[in-house]
Amino acid sequence: MRATVIHGPNDIRIEDVPDARIQQPTDAVVRVVNACICGSDLWAYRGVASREAGQRIGHEFLGVVEEVGPQVRGFKAGDFVVAPFVWSDGTCDFCREGLQTSCPHGGFWGQVGSDGGQGEAVRVPFADGTLVQLPKEAAGDEKLLPGLLSLSDVMATGHHAAVSAGVTPGSTVAVVGDGAVGLCGVLAAHRLGAGRIIALGRHQVRTDIARKFGATDVVAERGEDAIEKVKELTGGQGAHAVLEAVGTEESMRTAISIARDGGAVGYVGVPHGGSAGVDIGQMFGRNVQLRGGVAPARAYIPELLPDVLSGKIDPGLVFDRTVDLDGVPEGYRAMDNRSALKVRISF
Amino acid sequence: MRATVIHGPNDIRIEDVPDARIQQPTDAVVRVVNACICGSDLWAYRGVASREAGQRIGHEFLGVVEEVGPQVRGFKAGDFVVAPFVWSDGTCDFCREGLQTSCPHGGFWGQVGSDGGQGEAVRVPFADGTLVQLPKEAAGDEKLLPGLLSLSDVMATGHHAAVSAGVTPGSTVAVVGDGAVGLCGVLAAHRLGAGRIIALGRHQVRTDIARKFGATDVVAERGEDAIEKVKELTGGQGAHAVLEAVGTEESMRTAISIARDGGAVGYVGVPHGGSAGVDIGQMFGRNVQLRGGVAPARAYIPELLPDVLSGKIDPGLVFDRTVDLDGVPEGYRAMDNRSALKVRISF
Repeated sequence: MRATVIHGPNDIRIEDVPDARIQQPTDAVVRVVNACICGSDLWAYRGVASREAGQRIGHEFLGVVEEVGPQVRGFKAGDFVVAPFVWSDGTCDFCREGLQTSCPHGGFWGQVGSDGGQGEAVRVPFADGTLVQLPKEAAGDEKLLPGLLSLSDVMATGHHAAVSAGVTPGSTVAVVGDGAVGLCGVLAAHRLGAGRIIALGRHQVRTDIARKFGATDVVAERGEDAIEKVKELTGGQGAHAVLEAVGTEESMRTAISIARDGGAVGYVGVPHGGSAGVDIGQMFGRNVQLRGGVAPARAYIPELLPDVLSGKIDPGLVFDRTVDLDGVPEGYRAMDNRSALKVRISF
Repeated sequence: MRATVIHGPNDIRIEDVPDARIQQPTDAVVRVVNACICGSDLWAYRGVASREAGQRIGHEFLGVVEEVGPQVRGFKAGDFVVAPFVWSDGTCDFCREGLQTSCPHGGFWGQVGSDGGQGEAVRVPFADGTLVQLPKEAAGDEKLLPGLLSLSDVMATGHHAAVSAGVTPGSTVAVVGDGAVGLCGVLAAHRLGAGRIIALGRHQVRTDIARKFGATDVVAERGEDAIEKVKELTGGQGAHAVLEAVGTEESMRTAISIARDGGAVGYVGVPHGGSAGVDIGQMFGRNVQLRGGVAPARAYIPELLPDVLSGKIDPGLVFDRTVDLDGVPEGYRAMDNRSALKVRISF
């Protein structure tokens, strides 16, 4: 089979790799229908996050079950499924509590020795604990596929940011980051009933999506100016809930600064660099909470799925380009130079 | 009148100062019955936190109302009252929400231009918003006074740590710090129904109090060894709720490390130094939350007071020495060299 492989910074290739196959009785093999490229894949692409040469990549996919191991109970060949961006056993304390990202038997697609999502097929460990069933008729629905695919990571992660930041009906929310996760954060905050949603971003294509997703205000300024602007918009107090969807020192600093006293920053941007901008002195005096982390997408998919299927939310709008497998290297380039927001891979 | 004044590191004096008097119509003057020395006063004493030479000090006191301004409605001369460690107007958004520490008209006893708690009398701004009524008969009850005094800061702060860390009935709690706040954190966690309370501390006098307050386990190790020990006691998982009551980089690092994935660190130790030990990378992958800050004691006193009056909790046990006003400099020395846990000042 063919799959995406990373050989080093800026070196993404499509190669022949060993076929995905059942190795454990709890495995399934999923033939990928759609996958995509994540903003966090760019950290590897840019060489900021290190990868072994030849490592597989991609952690978001949906597809059709091709084969299941003898101990798999909930799935059979032909099922249409979506995978969250980590696998998990479904039976441990953490899985039962809905924090599948802390499953001691869990792992991340594309980690050394595993298949990545950006390939023709994927061996799925602990299929019963990991996969989520989708309606079969959705498999051919080009309108639905992007939204369903987003549940794998980006929409679940935006939702995690909103939940972690404590978005409640009527609350004032600010979202730092106009990437696909930030935009899904806007959508998640809107879905949770936020009264006002301030999106920080300066790229009109993106802020237009933010407005479609429910943003009531857009702040194009950055740094100190952005902080001042958000304060101005909130009567000097800041936002009850701030979603941090970037992961840089500057974005975290901004997020903490624009949180209202007693409010929370829900951070889902993978932290890169130093103290990550956490100013504990400022947090202490103002009782600003810091919550979030890697999103337990597996816990959120069942909650979000009905709203995607019904059309109540359409997170699929974050995809603005579709490529085939051979187009993946160009997809990375497009996301890296920000000419694409998020690239879908259709097999 | 006479009051405690700080002139510089290790230079605490008792001096004649101008009498406390009504300056605003919302003021009250309180004749101090009991005050105390706080662990955070030691930061000033040691020169880590800077103070102007001649600045007043002390932020914990209870006493008898001597006089009220014409706009004070809830108090009259002769009332017995306790003051939280910040004053607040009682009418702003934050005060109404119970985050009086963020009151825009609030302030901290002993800040430049204000009276400190460690003096014979205190001018109390916004008396209606700040003070809490105590039963008159308690004023002469030497058994009750220490517990009532603790509501001013140390018990309210321990409670804030427990609430911020998300202590729930049956949960496993760890408390970093065996100072008076940490011990009150143990008591607060016990009061909130924690199933297991692991106190980290190595001074037997203190850990004995921790056990009296409800600690089920004591860990004397520090740093990596402490982390290992707590993990061992919790089946490798760590504590659902961690109370951080020190404020150093090492204590924060320990606190985050011993939190169970998905759990929270409730930090109330005033942060001192650098990144304050916040390892965002570790927090991210494990969804460890960081909550807390300066405790809104004014919000908590009404909740905690009945349990102190009924004897259900006796946080007054953290006081192991009582001095008169002239004994205050010696009280600082004793707390600084750890020969006293917490010093009460009886007027």
